[in-house]
Amino acid sequence: MNIAIVGIGLIGGSIGIRLKETKFCDKVIGVDKNENHQKKALQLGLVDEIQTLDEVIQNAKAIILTVPVDAITKMLPSILDKVTDQVVIDMGSTKTNILQQIAEHPNRGRYVAAHPMAGTEYSGPEAAVADLFKGKMMVYVEAFKSDEDAFELADAITEQLEMKTSFMNADEHDMHTAYVSHISHLTSFALALTVLEKEKSQGRIFELAGSGFESTVRLAKSSPDMWTPIFKQNRSNVLEVLEEHIKQLQNLYDKLDQEDYDALHKLIKKSNKIKRIIK
Amino acid sequence: MNIAIVGIGLIGGSIGIRLKETKFCDKVIGVDKNENHQKKALQLGLVDEIQTLDEVIQNAKAIILTVPVDAITKMLPSILDKVTDQVVIDMGSTKTNILQQIAEHPNRGRYVAAHPMAGTEYSGPEAAVADLFKGKMMVYVEAFKSDEDAFELADAITEQLEMKTSFMNADEHDMHTAYVSHISHLTSFALALTVLEKEKSQGRIFELAGSGFESTVRLAKSSPDMWTPIFKQNRSNVLEVLEEHIKQLQNLYDKLDQEDYDALHKLIKKSNKIKRIIK
Repeated sequence: MNIAIVGIGLIGGSIGIRLKETKFCDKVIGVDKNENHQKKALQLGLVDEIQTLDEVIQNAKAIILTVPVDAITKMLPSILDKVTDQVVIDMGSTKTNILQQIAEHPNRGRYVAAHPMAGTEYSGPEAAVADLFKGKMMVYVEAFKSDEDAFELADAITEQLEMKTSFMNADEHDMHTAYVSHISHLTSFALALTVLEKEKSQGRIFELAGSGFESTVRLAKSSPDMWTPIFKQNRSNVLEVLEEHIKQLQNLYDKLDQEDYDALHKLIKKSNKIKRIIK
Repeated sequence: MNIAIVGIGLIGGSIGIRLKETKFCDKVIGVDKNENHQKKALQLGLVDEIQTLDEVIQNAKAIILTVPVDAITKMLPSILDKVTDQVVIDMGSTKTNILQQIAEHPNRGRYVAAHPMAGTEYSGPEAAVADLFKGKMMVYVEAFKSDEDAFELADAITEQLEMKTSFMNADEHDMHTAYVSHISHLTSFALALTVLEKEKSQGRIFELAGSGFESTVRLAKSSPDMWTPIFKQNRSNVLEVLEEHIKQLQNLYDKLDQEDYDALHKLIKKSNKIKRIIK
């Protein structure tokens, strides 16, 4: 059995290394329109060989899509047009649009919607690491609409990646990821823009940047090609959570502006409840 | 020579361990009004013994203040009233107020204003670690106003902590820390409040929380007793940077709301310049 990975970057490349390591399949075949990524992926041993998308539809049992979500939306219907018993697994970060789009497709059953809650702020094949997924959560969305054998193969791959699993519907998934992933990226982008802007007039400002600043801003290194489509596809949820986040910041601003330090202390103490969640 | 540490928490305790480790002084004496902290500090070997503030003013050559900044502001003038050749070092996160307050004190020269750009989201004596400061920046503020021997002793301690050094005036320090430290805490507090609020109605939301969320929200575990006084003392700078940060978030919101994805892509790409700063 061959497994194809379409898009050999952080996610795709990391899946490739791990599947090769566990010898889960005969060959891992990479597909990438970027020639540098193709070369790098072969050099780094992320995949065994490179083929075109049409070739892997013929030659692979499973086709894993790890390109940006707008590219997944474009390519998925035509891939499903061509499959018979192959399995197509989408690893994108948003699900509502894509699931609506192929809801009535005659080969809907061959498709599995999955989202690995794992990543780093780096991108491209050089960012791939074998243990990226270990212990992390793979979320299946509308898994009951996949054929049983298709889901079983997807889940066997998840097992190779040593992930935990969770099941959700599309709305729930897209709203939850807006709250615990997409908003974190937006606050980091905004924080980086704020401080970079100030540096222009002040210089030296980063001399004082410590580990606290680093951790809140590191996601601002994330790729715009990956993230713009995510915000586009999950626009209404992202707008909702961003609005709420701005309200919370404005509330902290108002309390400080009014010198209401008791209220400020209470808000900080309330936020400390995050200790329950984050060890 | 004895060194006293007033406030045996994350910062004070970490200094204590390190100075004991390097045998820089005869004894490290701890001062803390919290009896549990006193016991813990002795148990964990952060200090050699516990004394009162008045006792250490008699018995120590250097008195390092690592209590919250409002407590520093309260106790510093009366400590300076009592010193002769001792050195008082303040390790607080804000400097303008405190420096104004003791500017004309006859013993001004015995005081060194220093700010170690190091910390974690944890607090209390249990949070202390020997290598907290290694490779980090110690910022001296208005160092030229300290007596030469007082500064030399403070800097010898900084050397024991294996820190780099930087010199600033008070305005510059307080503005820069607002940008690269205080704002990071506010965004984390706000993000935690946003998501905790949503969890009430949605549950399950943290199932999907990955490392990106963790890193942007971890500072929300920070102590309200430590941070409320920092925001109070650095109010005007913090309000300025918070206003700018909200503007940047609102701009991202507007671009997404208007579906101007080119502009959104450009803003994200611009924020990626943070790569220059954060490795």
